Formats: sequence, structure tokens, C-alpha cells
Amino acid sequence: MKHLRSIPEIGPDGIVRLLEISRRMAEVNRRPVPKVPALVGRTVASLFFEDSTRTRLSFETAARRLSADTMTFSVSTSSVNKGESLRDTVETLDAMGVAAFVVRHRSSGVPWQMENWTNASIVNAGDGWHQHPTQALLDLLTVHDRFGLDPSLSSLRGIRVAIVGDVKHSRVARSDVQAFTMLGADVVLVGPATLMPPEVDGWPVSIAGSIDDVLGEVDVLYMLRMQRERMNEALVPSMAEYGSRFALDARRAALLKPGAIVMHPGPMNRGIEMQVDPTLLPGSAIADQVANGIAVRMAVLFDLLGQPEGGIPS
Amino acid sequence: MKHLRSIPEIGPDGIVRLLEISRRMAEVNRRPVPKVPALVGRTVASLFFEDSTRTRLSFETAARRLSADTMTFSVSTSSVNKGESLRDTVETLDAMGVAAFVVRHRSSGVPWQMENWTNASIVNAGDGWHQHPTQALLDLLTVHDRFGLDPSLSSLRGIRVAIVGDVKHSRVARSDVQAFTMLGADVVLVGPATLMPPEVDGWPVSIAGSIDDVLGEVDVLYMLRMQRERMNEALVPSMAEYGSRFALDARRAALLKPGAIVMHPGPMNRGIEMQVDPTLLPGSAIADQVANGIAVRMAVLFDLLGQPEGGIPS
Amino acid sequence: MKHLRSIPEIGPDGIVRLLEISRRMAEVNRRPVPKVPALVGRTVASLFFEDSTRTRLSFETAARRLSADTMTFSVSTSSVNKGESLRDTVETLDAMGVAAFVVRHRSSGVPWQMENWTNASIVNAGDGWHQHPTQALLDLLTVHDRFGLDPSLSSLRGIRVAIVGDVKHSRVARSDVQAFTMLGADVVLVGPATLMPPEVDGWPVSIAGSIDDVLGEVDVLYMLRMQRERMNEALVPSMAEYGSRFALDARRAALLKPGAIVMHPGPMNRGIEMQVDPTLLPGSAIADQVANGIAVRMAVLFDLLGQPEGGIPS
Repeated sequence: MKHLRSIPEIGPDGIVRLLEISRRMAEVNRRPVPKVPALVGRTVASLFFEDSTRTRLSFETAARRLSADTMTFSVSTSSVNKGESLRDTVETLDAMGVAAFVVRHRSSGVPWQMENWTNASIVNAGDGWHQHPTQALLDLLTVHDRFGLDPSLSSLRGIRVAIVGDVKHSRVARSDVQAFTMLGADVVLVGPATLMPPEVDGWPVSIAGSIDDVLGEVDVLYMLRMQRERMNEALVPSMAEYGSRFALDARRAALLKPGAIVMHPGPMNRGIEMQVDPTLLPGSAIADQVANGIAVRMAVLFDLLGQPEGGIPS
Repeated sequence: MKHLRSIPEIGPDGIVRLLEISRRMAEVNRRPVPKVPALVGRTVASLFFEDSTRTRLSFETAARRLSADTMTFSVSTSSVNKGESLRDTVETLDAMGVAAFVVRHRSSGVPWQMENWTNASIVNAGDGWHQHPTQALLDLLTVHDRFGLDPSLSSLRGIRVAIVGDVKHSRVARSDVQAFTMLGADVVLVGPATLMPPEVDGWPVSIAGSIDDVLGEVDVLYMLRMQRERMNEALVPSMAEYGSRFALDARRAALLKPGAIVMHPGPMNRGIEMQVDPTLLPGSAIADQVANGIAVRMAVLFDLLGQPEGGIPS
Repeated sequence: MKHLRSIPEIGPDGIVRLLEISRRMAEVNRRPVPKVPALVGRTVASLFFEDSTRTRLSFETAARRLSADTMTFSVSTSSVNKGESLRDTVETLDAMGVAAFVVRHRSSGVPWQMENWTNASIVNAGDGWHQHPTQALLDLLTVHDRFGLDPSLSSLRGIRVAIVGDVKHSRVARSDVQAFTMLGADVVLVGPATLMPPEVDGWPVSIAGSIDDVLGEVDVLYMLRMQRERMNEALVPSMAEYGSRFALDARRAALLKPGAIVMHPGPMNRGIEMQVDPTLLPGSAIADQVANGIAVRMAVLFDLLGQPEGGIPS
């Protein structure tokens, strides 16, 4: 594997392999000294054209636990002139000897463009509404852990996942739908018709019109972040009305199936999609998602950059 | 010791222990390779909700000399919505495996609030007008070094300290008053009545109305930073008038007792409270304060995060 | 050698020695693990008063490959009050134990001023229009590599270098003219009279009025960055007119001598001075310049901070 840019590009075999490596990395993270020398001397560059401190810190923590050096290149989109700057930046960092680029960009497809400008590995940390593959992998790892499953091609058969909210503008939803269905889960999308993507008809999912329709039957309730801006764009009439059909509150949380888990990619909008404190929900897996994010990103960087004969030092 | 949040919380025993460790760390810092592997694999997160590059760099340098990894989360207060974001940030970094938070916040009490959201250690790098305990510790270390004293409960008996300026709005003053008096020093506060805190009556200090009243009798002249904004708030009539009673200039410096030292927490306002170049004062201990800041912060992080059986590698 | 602040200050002997060390560092960079423990425990502080992410990252990468710790202090010029802040910043970081300052400042001479405030080594990463010595060194290394030359006092005899563009405002041009001529190269400056420095009469160079006059005869075509602001200052009538005489386009590139190389200090202004994609030019040495920048900066830091008996670990 040379790059990690999308879930379809790595397919079910890639997913299963990365989940297995992630579990070994989670074991490293439980050690008193959670650090291994696997990537000494390799440089991982974070190229963030959209602000995301938590995703960037997660990748940088993962890199440092593998003893890689890190380099941060944060740019507000406004200062970038038409893709030329992106290219020059990539070519310059490539010439400095960067081993992997972790890139987030508001335009879909940037991680594929970059392949023309560098021989380094490329990890997609979010491109437009398109893909966010490490988020999907950490979500899968969390579900496997919570339900005691071993990753394999059909390991999620029988698991029912609801993804709730603004699916249309969400790269998390797109990557998660692909990843969950590849491993056999049933996925139901829940949200207003205005926030469903036009291409949803071709997806192997079902649709529900209210969170109340799915509460009692899902194993995983995945709440997406709802951005207030959607209201200005007239995609939702008001946040109150949105909440009445799609927010998670204490009353609804009590109607979840015993053992069901609640997930969220963060950062939460408390009072909008999350109207209950997740730390009060017995089924909240949100902190697990964050912790698994480190393990998954370590696995990805190790898989892309580690020596074939290397193994994970004990 | 789990946290370092205030001087009263650690008490005189905690102060003495940390000063002793700090001296061993100062010895590490004089080595050709001033670095020890004590905290390999531990992550120290700096959470700065107020700008302070020098304090942040001091903590991060201390962390790296102990071989810890560092993570910086700087946020302008404006972008924080009412504490929820702080909580989510802390919970997220906690889930990433942070071992200690170094936090600076404009609201008093934040380091105590954070205890509800994380099991990591918390180091207060300044909360509102309340506390700045590592500043007090480095100030104590500097005074002990300069006067050849060994830290103990009454080691500062007979030392007379004047703290000059805006005591009311100063967490440095509050922490220093507590720390100096705990070790037996006599403290006199010097400043306009409008810049004395209402609670000062209960403090074990005396008060003077002009710097000229104390020059000839103090061993330590501690100049606080005077912020120009106080003038707009009508707390001082003008900077010229303030300076006439409370600034240090060359004439006044010449009236200091032989062997007396001058301290300042930085950054100085040259031309306001400091009207003389401190590098020209034989008694200036300001550079020592900065150097001791590294040693004290190494001691604190080592005490909070080091292995009990660890010791300082030689 | 205590500092690297200008090409004249180190002279031809310093240049030759640093180029030789740079070649050994380039060898380190080709290893599977391009990292040596030469500067463990030493702290290199980047003090950038002008934005330059790529130069800063190049120095920081160099420092980390030598296992030094790095510290970044970036400040917009606007927030600095008249040099006092610079002095206090330098004195504070000095007291924290910084071993070397890498400084970029819009005012010429700042790296010499700093000597009064610190005992640490000072590396000039660009001061006003004055000097950018590591750029000159990496340019020299690139020319020696490309033409198979061994660095020595007259190693560039017979090599003809054209430097094209806004020489007047360019510290790169000033440093390069000195460095190339010290090693015996012939240098011709090409640009509008309004962009030639007043002092050019005393330089050991010739002048040409159009890029077309030199294309067929130079071994090195060095394109300077042309800033659009010069047009507003009425130093050039229009970018189109400037380009007609001084830009490199595909037609002109085809007229270069076989084996000639094209260089640029970056970042390029595509469509202004560079009207051809440099990756399509067989003679482009621009990526080599970036890679050599790491090796040269490693050599400089190693020469300034390494132990005399140290050597480069193998």
C-alpha cells in the first residue's frame, strides 16, 4: 500500500489488514512507554488547508509514537492561489525529504492530484465532501472493540448502523457508509431530504425520516455534526425543527436498545445534534473513537512507511 | 502529588520538595547534554487560552529536556464558546493519551474544573488573577540561589521582599505573597491604593505607599508588570504619575541596599515600571528567573509524571 | 566559527569548509535513517520576524536530523515595538539555554545587533535586502554537484552565472554575487536599470539589459523572484513589459546552452518571472536547491554547535 486516500481504493482486504495492525498499535498505546522506534528519521508533513486542530494533533501524536519527525504546514485557504501554490508547496516539501503527506483540503480529489508532484505517501485527512478514510477506520475499530468482533470481510453482518444528520455535506458519512457496508453491516441514513446526497439512490443503504424510527432497532447510532450554516442556506427551516426530528436527547437515548452505542466524529455541537451530555450515556463510544484514532493513524503510517521486515518492536 | 494548581494546595512541604528537585534539574541543565530520558513516551499538552509565548516555550523546553513529547493547543479566547469547548478539548486530548495538561486561562479556577474531565495531571500556568504557582517557585529558587540559602520551611526568615505595582490584577503577586511568607520572608506590598486587592487586609504583609519608602531596606525588589490599560480604567491617573512613585529608575536603583536583587516576571514594560536597563543593574536576577523557570518546570513535570522508582538519570 | 551572518564574514575558506561538510550531510540524508545524534540536547530557536514557512521548515528539519530540539518564535513585525521587544525576546530565550538562533528580520544588521544580547550562535536566515548566506551556500553546492566540481577557492573558474531580475531588493542576489565570485565564477546581472542597486558599480560583475543577451552563453541561469509590488512602486512599467525582457519561457529555455542549469530561490511567481513549468526543463536544479538547503543547514548548525571531537556519526 502506497497511499491511503479512500475506502474504495483500499477495499475490504486493506480495511481488515489496517484494523489488525491498529489493534497491535492499541496494545503499544497501553504500554507504560507508548513509543516505538519504527519510523526514526522519517518525516511526516501535515498539510492542513482547513483548520482541524484535533485531527492534526491525532496524526502528529501517532507519528511521534512511531518516533517519526513531524512538520506542520497550516494554511488558510484564502492565502492559496489557485492550486499552483499547493503544487509548489508539495514539490518543495518533497525535495526536503518528506516521507508522507497528511493532507486536508476543501477540494475533493486533492490527494490524487498530489501524486503527480511527489513520490511520498499521501494520507487523506479529509478532502471536501468526499472522503475521510482514517475516520472510517477508527469508527470500524471502535465498533469491533465494543461488540467483541474480530475484523474480517463479513465481521459486521447483523450489526445495524444508523447515520444521522447532514449526510449530503459529510465526507465522514460517505467513508463510513462504504466501510461499514463492505464489512457487512446494515446502514440506515436518517436526515431531512434536503440533506441527503443526490447519489444516495445507488448506495446500499436504507433511509429513515426521523431518528425516532430507528432508536429501538440499531446497534450503532452515529450522530453527524450539524453545521448552523445549513440554516442560512435554507436546507433546514430552523435548528429547533431540525432537533425535533434528528437530535439526540435524554428521552431518546433511553429508548436505545440495551447495548447500543452512540458515536460522533467530533467536534460536537452541544444543543444542536447532541442535546444530552454524552458522558452520561452508558453507550457513548466517543472517547473510544478518539483513542482509536491514534491507533489507526499509527497503523496507517506504519503500513505506508515501515520497513517490510520491520515488525512492531516489543 | 497529582496536580500543581496553587501554592496553598501544595503547602510548604510541597514547595521545599519541588525546590530541591529543581536544584537537581538545574544541575542537569548545566551538563553538556542537558537531556534525560525520564519521561520518554509521555505527552505534555500546552493548552493556552491566553497568549504567552515565553511561558509556553519554557514549559515545552522543560518537557523536552525530560524527553517527553509536547503538543500545543493555542486558542484565542474569542473562539471559545462558554466552557463547553474547553471541556470537549480536554476530553478529546485526554482520550488521545495526554499525561499532563499545562493550562493558562483568563478565568480563575479553570485548573480545578478540568479535574472533572480528565485523569491527567494538571499544571496551572496562570488562571485569571488567581494563581501562577510555577512563577512563585522559580522566584523562590532564584532568591535561595542568590542568597546562598537551602530551601526549608523557614529558610527565608530575615529576607525582606517588596512587591511593587499592580498587585490587584496580578496572579504572580498572589502566588508570590503566599510562597514567600510560607518560607518565612517579610513581604511588603508597594502600589497605589487603587491597585491593592480588597482582600489584602487578611494577608500577612505590610503596605507601603511609595517605592522610595522601601528601597534602602529590602533584599528583594520585585517589580510587577504595569499594564497601560489600567490608565484607561482610571485606576492610575497617568503613567507619568504612576512612575513618579512606583517605577525603578537609575537613581532609585542606586539607593538599593548592597547585595539587594531586582526581579521581574517579564515581559517588562521598559519606560513604565522599568525605567532603567536591567542588564546595567548589578543586582538584576531577571535572567536567573528565566533560567530557573526551566529547572522548576522540569521538576514539576518530573514530580507529577516520573516513575516513583525512577530518579534522575545521571 | 561562532556565527553565520554573511558571506564576507566567513570568506572563501569558510565557504569551502561548509561545502565540504554539506556533502557529508547530503550523504547522511541518503541513508535509510537520515538522522544522527550530533546535537542531542542542544536547542535551536527559529526567530522569524518575516513569514517564511519554507526556510523555517528547512532549518528545523536540518536541526532535527542532527537530533537537536527546536523552538519556534514567529512574530509579525507589526507586534514588535522598536527593537526593545527583539532584545527582550533574545535575552529571554538565551536565558532558557538556546544554543543557536536562526533569525530572519526585515531590518538589515539585526544578526549583528543580537550579538550584544546573547552568547548563543547566530545564523542569518535573511536580514532585509542585505544577506541570506545559507541560500548562497546551497546555491554553490547545487552548482558544484551539477557540474561535478570539488569545492575549492577557484573551483568555479570558467563557470558563467546570470542572475536575472530584481537585484536591488534581493538579499539572495547580494549573497550569491559575493559567493559565486569568491570561488571564481563570472557573474552577469540582468534586469531593468531601476532594479539594479546603486552600489553595483563596485561589484565584480557585468550587466546585461535583457535575458536574451545571455541565454546562449551562461552555465547557470538564476531567476530571482519578482514581486508584483514593484509595479505599484513604478519600478517596472507593467508585468507584461517586464516579462518581455526578463521572464523565462519555453522559447527562451530552448535557447540555453546544452547542459546549462536553471535555478530559483523560491517561491516562484509562475506567470511572472517563470512562464514555463520548471519540472519540464531538463536543466532545472530547483528541487536540488531545496534538498541541498537541508544539507547546508545541517552543516552550518553542526559546524557552529557540534563538539570539536565529535565528527559525524556513521
